[in-house]
Amino acid sequence: MEKRSGEEVKGVTVSNKQVILREYVSEFPREDDMEVRREEMKLEVPPGSNAVLVKNLYLSCDPYMRLLMSPALPNSLFSSYTPRSPITGFGVAKIVDSGSPEFKVGDLVWGTTAWEEYSLIADPRGLFKIDHTDVPLSYYTGILGMPGMTAYFGFYEVCSPKKGEHVFVSAASGAVGQLVGQFAKLMGCHVVGSAGSKEKVDLLKTKFGFDDAFNYKEEHDLNAALKRYFPEGIDIYFENVGGKMLDAVLLNMRVRGRIAACGMISQYNRNPPEGVTNLMHIVYGRVRIEGFAVFDYFDQYSKFLDFVLPHIREGKIVYIEDVAEGLEKGPSALVGLFSGRNVGKQVVAVARE
Amino acid sequence: MEKRSGEEVKGVTVSNKQVILREYVSEFPREDDMEVRREEMKLEVPPGSNAVLVKNLYLSCDPYMRLLMSPALPNSLFSSYTPRSPITGFGVAKIVDSGSPEFKVGDLVWGTTAWEEYSLIADPRGLFKIDHTDVPLSYYTGILGMPGMTAYFGFYEVCSPKKGEHVFVSAASGAVGQLVGQFAKLMGCHVVGSAGSKEKVDLLKTKFGFDDAFNYKEEHDLNAALKRYFPEGIDIYFENVGGKMLDAVLLNMRVRGRIAACGMISQYNRNPPEGVTNLMHIVYGRVRIEGFAVFDYFDQYSKFLDFVLPHIREGKIVYIEDVAEGLEKGPSALVGLFSGRNVGKQVVAVARE
Repeated sequence: MEKRSGEEVKGVTVSNKQVILREYVSEFPREDDMEVRREEMKLEVPPGSNAVLVKNLYLSCDPYMRLLMSPALPNSLFSSYTPRSPITGFGVAKIVDSGSPEFKVGDLVWGTTAWEEYSLIADPRGLFKIDHTDVPLSYYTGILGMPGMTAYFGFYEVCSPKKGEHVFVSAASGAVGQLVGQFAKLMGCHVVGSAGSKEKVDLLKTKFGFDDAFNYKEEHDLNAALKRYFPEGIDIYFENVGGKMLDAVLLNMRVRGRIAACGMISQYNRNPPEGVTNLMHIVYGRVRIEGFAVFDYFDQYSKFLDFVLPHIREGKIVYIEDVAEGLEKGPSALVGLFSGRNVGKQVVAVARE
Repeated sequence: MEKRSGEEVKGVTVSNKQVILREYVSEFPREDDMEVRREEMKLEVPPGSNAVLVKNLYLSCDPYMRLLMSPALPNSLFSSYTPRSPITGFGVAKIVDSGSPEFKVGDLVWGTTAWEEYSLIADPRGLFKIDHTDVPLSYYTGILGMPGMTAYFGFYEVCSPKKGEHVFVSAASGAVGQLVGQFAKLMGCHVVGSAGSKEKVDLLKTKFGFDDAFNYKEEHDLNAALKRYFPEGIDIYFENVGGKMLDAVLLNMRVRGRIAACGMISQYNRNPPEGVTNLMHIVYGRVRIEGFAVFDYFDQYSKFLDFVLPHIREGKIVYIEDVAEGLEKGPSALVGLFSGRNVGKQVVAVARE
């Protein structure tokens, strides 16, 4: 019989450690914009509800979380955090109690949870059950979770790639970028990435198989840098950073080039954002820029897993994580994203089992 | 037997009036950036060549011509004008002499010609023969020519419109905008246009059948204006102006909205262009921005004519021109585009027959 490892805690009352947002953030987030507190919690779902109660194992640090730290968000894609409440994000968790017929105690899941040791998830329909545990569980915050799907659908669906095309990836050593580059290589593209340190640039070239890479912090003229790495221009740009980099890329797009706009991390801490001046190059080059949201592809998760799991098992795709140990390290790990302190996907390990 | 009305001039030498560009322009073009001069020309194609010699009847003033007045153009879509030579553009002309088996003396054509009374066109493969003369010949500089195809393919192909969608058109009373609005109404969309005077706004509402229209010069807050006219947001934006208008539109796009980038007339006289700050809204709304070039659709001209000619004949599409009489008026007519002086499509009538 299967071990139901959540059962030993179900029903007890714990002092639940949480990371809360103190108040809304206007520029760069700082560690002390958040605080760690404890709150009593009985590990039980309300009787008659559909909720699940989970023990959080790994939490994911993702750039979009900065957007939720601001009060006004433009539309329904996200909703802002509530000050004095735990922040939310993607994570891997284990079911401790369940009012849902879909999940039983001991099940491993990934999806949206809160930054705390235990979370009550009122609507568990957004959770994915984890069926494959021969890979590290933390991978479900990254390569096997939301960032992995972002890279996969963003590249294969939004970029419409063809063999031999020239692909540029910014924030290339991050959770999404490292995968986009590898997917592009699998497709037979020529791939160049940008990142913010020598260590990351080396990783891109030696570990992730990028054809070339550069440190954008050492290039005072991004247009010149791109012309050096793409003398014939860029067919596909996987946009993770926005601002000056996008402006330089627009000057280097080939005719009928495609830009998949995944995010613009360089702009999240600026109000107003930097102006992009070279948009007329969209017309010159008949370029397509398309924003996308990974949520729109969540119903294709199994198709994604069928592709990516064998590649991981056979070592054809590699993946690097930067794991912070303990929920207390969460705020520092999260704000580190915006100065590029992390090397690889930033994860917070809350508990191992 | 058909009248071959070019024959009376073929072979003679004329003093050919021309509009030349004095030198490259850096900001707003002025009338005196061009000058009218005369040059002797024998009305005969070089023996053994494929060229045609035409008498120009109507010349088209189009915003893209400003781009050709600058020295450096980014790619192969256009090439810059040559200072001290006649400027070029679209026009309607009559064949006076022909070395091409495709064209005979007296044929009416439209396509790229030069701003002069007579032009030698070395490669006539880009010319379209005019077969339907029950509509005004000048229409082939607009609704039946390049701007008409721009509106048609830009709207039907690039915007992917659906019945009931909310469409915004900037520079809406211009050659392209007035047609996009009418195509959108034929498709059952809700259409609002912006233009730069009360007269133009009235035209949009009373003549072209836009559901509503506003004078952008009277709106100090374009975002607020768009929210007033599109309380539920914009599905399709046909982009003719760029800059501040695009920035405000980005704040008002609906989820999966589409922006067809046809041109950005507000930016052609600025160096550098205005910065657009709201591009992150492409991600929030999964918006697609796509640049296009009408040249890519020129092989579908007959499909376009089959659609638009019956609509003109039956009065289901109306069309307004602003005709300047005489080549001497050309420079003033052309620079007037950039201050919005024209009402409707700006044409220069060089000769009537």
